[in-house]
Amino acid sequence: MEKLLIQNGSILTMSTPQACIFKGDILVEGNKIANIGRDLLTDGIDTVINAEDMVVMPGLINCHNHAAMVLLRGYCDDLRLMEWLSEKIWPAEDRLNGDDVYWGTMLASAEMIKSGTTTFADMYFFMDDVATAVQDSGIRAALCQGLLFNDGNGDKRIEATQRLFDNWSGKAEGRITTMVGPHAPYTCPPDKLKLAMELAKDLDSGIHIHLAETMEEVNQMFNEYGKSPTKYLADLGLFESHHVLLAHTVNLSRDDIYILKDLKGGVSHNPVSNQKLGCGIAPVKELRDLGITVGLGTDGAGSSSTLDMFEEIKAAAWLQKNRLFDPTVITAYDVLQMATIEGAKALGLDQEIGTLEQGKKADIIIIDVQKPHLYPQNDICALLAYSANGADVDTTIIDGKVVMKNRILLSITEKEVLHKAQQIARKILM
Amino acid sequence: MEKLLIQNGSILTMSTPQACIFKGDILVEGNKIANIGRDLLTDGIDTVINAEDMVVMPGLINCHNHAAMVLLRGYCDDLRLMEWLSEKIWPAEDRLNGDDVYWGTMLASAEMIKSGTTTFADMYFFMDDVATAVQDSGIRAALCQGLLFNDGNGDKRIEATQRLFDNWSGKAEGRITTMVGPHAPYTCPPDKLKLAMELAKDLDSGIHIHLAETMEEVNQMFNEYGKSPTKYLADLGLFESHHVLLAHTVNLSRDDIYILKDLKGGVSHNPVSNQKLGCGIAPVKELRDLGITVGLGTDGAGSSSTLDMFEEIKAAAWLQKNRLFDPTVITAYDVLQMATIEGAKALGLDQEIGTLEQGKKADIIIIDVQKPHLYPQNDICALLAYSANGADVDTTIIDGKVVMKNRILLSITEKEVLHKAQQIARKILM
Repeated sequence: MEKLLIQNGSILTMSTPQACIFKGDILVEGNKIANIGRDLLTDGIDTVINAEDMVVMPGLINCHNHAAMVLLRGYCDDLRLMEWLSEKIWPAEDRLNGDDVYWGTMLASAEMIKSGTTTFADMYFFMDDVATAVQDSGIRAALCQGLLFNDGNGDKRIEATQRLFDNWSGKAEGRITTMVGPHAPYTCPPDKLKLAMELAKDLDSGIHIHLAETMEEVNQMFNEYGKSPTKYLADLGLFESHHVLLAHTVNLSRDDIYILKDLKGGVSHNPVSNQKLGCGIAPVKELRDLGITVGLGTDGAGSSSTLDMFEEIKAAAWLQKNRLFDPTVITAYDVLQMATIEGAKALGLDQEIGTLEQGKKADIIIIDVQKPHLYPQNDICALLAYSANGADVDTTIIDGKVVMKNRILLSITEKEVLHKAQQIARKILM
Repeated sequence: MEKLLIQNGSILTMSTPQACIFKGDILVEGNKIANIGRDLLTDGIDTVINAEDMVVMPGLINCHNHAAMVLLRGYCDDLRLMEWLSEKIWPAEDRLNGDDVYWGTMLASAEMIKSGTTTFADMYFFMDDVATAVQDSGIRAALCQGLLFNDGNGDKRIEATQRLFDNWSGKAEGRITTMVGPHAPYTCPPDKLKLAMELAKDLDSGIHIHLAETMEEVNQMFNEYGKSPTKYLADLGLFESHHVLLAHTVNLSRDDIYILKDLKGGVSHNPVSNQKLGCGIAPVKELRDLGITVGLGTDGAGSSSTLDMFEEIKAAAWLQKNRLFDPTVITAYDVLQMATIEGAKALGLDQEIGTLEQGKKADIIIIDVQKPHLYPQNDICALLAYSANGADVDTTIIDGKVVMKNRILLSITEKEVLHKAQQIARKILM
C-alpha cells in the first residue's frame, strides 16, 4: 500500500470542539489516515511532503453545487432571479449535451481542487457525465439527478436517478456516493415527492432538495397549498425517516426553523449565491442554536461566480455578524467547522471525512501561510476563516492521492479543460 | 526617460461610462501613460511586458485604511466593537512605536501591491514612519494624522499634522499627498473640528473623517448635540467649502443622505469591516442615486482581516443586491468604478489616477485570467468583479515603476517584512 508522509505541518484536525493547532506529521496509507503524531518514522515511505510553515487541515466540503454551471459563469450577472433563470440560464442549459456537462464538471473540479475543496454535493443532469468527470478528476462527490416534474419529463429523471445509483454508487474507488434529488417543493407535487421519498427508501439513500431559496417560492407554496414549503415537506413526512440535505433555507419563519429541529441530515448555507441573487440571509444562528447541522455550499457558479469555499466561509461569518449586529454570534472556528465536519454531517459522510483522524479517508489540504495577507500569525483559525483565499492552498490530497502539488493540478490537464470550456461557452451562450 | 511597453493586453481603461474592453498596448514614459493603442512601436523601449491573455486595468484605490493595523490582524476577531477597541486594539496600539508602524505599513504595502492596490488613503499615527514606508515600498498614498481630542493630546496631533504636510506633501516623487484627519464627530468637539477645518483651509487640503460607523455613535451624538453626526458636521460648515472623504457612512437617515447631496469629495464604503464588526450596511445605492461619489476601502486589517480590494468589490455588490432584494441595483462595472475612478474622485486625485488615459500617472495592474475560476471568459468585468481575487494580479505598476512582476515584489523584501511583522506582533500582543 502506498505510503505518504506529511511532515512538520501546523495541523488543524477540526476534530476538537475548540480550535487546536499543533506541530506534527500525518501518515497516509492507501486512501486512509493511518497516524497523526510527532516525528513519525520515514522508513518505507513512498512520498514525503514537507509542510514546514504550512497549515494542514481537512479538505473543504461544498454541500450544494451544480458544478457544470461554471460554463455559465459571468454569462448574465446583475439580473433578477426569474429573468435570469427563464431568459438566460434555462435556454443555455437546454443547449448543453452530456459531453459539455463532462467538461463543465472537469472545469469545476479543477477550480475546486485548486481552492481546497475535496468533496462536493451536486444536483444536475447528464449525471453519467458528471460521475465520469468525478472519476477522472480524482475529486469526491455526492451526486444526484435533479428531479423536476413541471415539464412532463419527470419519469425520465426518475429513470436517470435509478441509472445513477446502478452505475455509480460507490464507484471511483468509493469517491462517488449518490442521493435522490427532488428539486424543490414548488417543482415537486405531493405524489411525485412521495415517489422520490420511496425511491430514496428503496435505495437506502439520502435526499438533496432546495428549500425556501426565495420569498417568491414561499408565496407560491402558500398560494397553492396554504402552507410554507418547509411545512409542505414536513407534512409529507420527509423529515421523519430520511437523511435530508436542504439547500438554502433562506426564507424560514420561526415555525419553519422549529420544524427542522430534529432534522436528520443538515442544511447547506450558500451565502454568496443568496446575496448575489438578492434572496436574503438564512437564519444560520437560529438553526445552529437548535442543534441543526449547517454546512456551506457555493451553489452553481452561474450565481456564485466562484466555487471558492473560502469566499463562503468569510461571507457566512460576515452575514450572521451583521444581520444580528453582533460579531460574537459566529466565530472563525464555527465557520471552519461548517466548511468541514458540519458539511460532512450534512452529506451523511462524517464517518469518512470532515476531520483529520486516524482511520478516516485522507482528504487533506495544505495551505501556504507564508504570505503578507496571512501575517502576523496571531491566530491561525482567524487567518484561515477571514484572511485566506483559495489561492493559498498549495497541496490537495483526496482519497490519499495528491491531486495538486505546488498549485499544479496532477489529475487534470488544466489547459485542455480551459480550452474546452471556452469552446462550449461559445456554442451555448448567445 | 524610461520607456515601458505593455503589449497585447485586454485593456479595461475604466474611462468609459459603460464597460469596454479592447486588445492593445500601453506605452509608459517615465511615470505617465504616454499612449494607448494598437501595435505601438517597440523602438527605444527599455522594458516590454507581454500581457497576452491578461487583463490590464487601473490600479485599485483603497479609500480608507489604517495600514499598520495589519499588525493586529486576527488578534481579536469575533468581539463586540467597543470591547474590541477598548480591551484589545487600543492597548495594543499604545505599545506601538514609530519603527513598528513603519514595518506594519511595509507589510500592508506588500499585501496591497500583491492584491492590485496602487493607492491608499491612510489615517493613523507616527505618520512620518508611515510616509517613509510609502516612500520605500513604491506605493501611492493620501496620508493623514488621526486627530482625536478626547485624551488631552489633541494639540500634539495638530502639530503632527503640520509636520506631515511640511515634510511629506508631494514627496516620494509626488506619490504622497496629505489630508487633515479629524477622527470622527464623537471624538472632535465643535471648536476642535473648526480648528481642523481652518487648518485644512490654510493648507489647501482635503479632510478625511469617519462618519456614522455605528449606531452607538449616532445615539451618542443625539444625546450630546441633539442631532445626527452628519447634521453635526453640516452645521459646522464642513460640507460647504471642503473636499471631504467620509469613511463608513453606515448609519445615515434619509435626511443625512440628502445633506450629503452636494458633497465635494466622496464616501469610502468599507463593506467587509462594517459586516465583520456588525455595524450594518451603508446606503450605497441611495448615495449613488443622488450623484454622491462612493469609493471603496478596507478599513484597517484589524477589522477587515485583509487589504484585498477584490473582497471589497464583491462584498459591496453582494450587500446592495441583497439589502434591496434586487440584483440589478448595482452592476459589476459599477463596483469596478467604485474601486478605481470613483475612489480617485473621493481622494481628489481623479485628474492623476483612477483610469488608464494618456497623460495620467501610470498606476496599472495586469491580471492573469488563465485560471479555472476565471473561465469561460463570457464577460471580463463580471469575472473581475465577482470571480477574481487579489492573487490573480500578476504585475503591479505604480508611478511608472514595476513594483511586482510574476507575483514577486520588486520594491519590498517580502521575507524581511514578514519576519519583522511577526516580531512586532509578539511584542505588542499579549
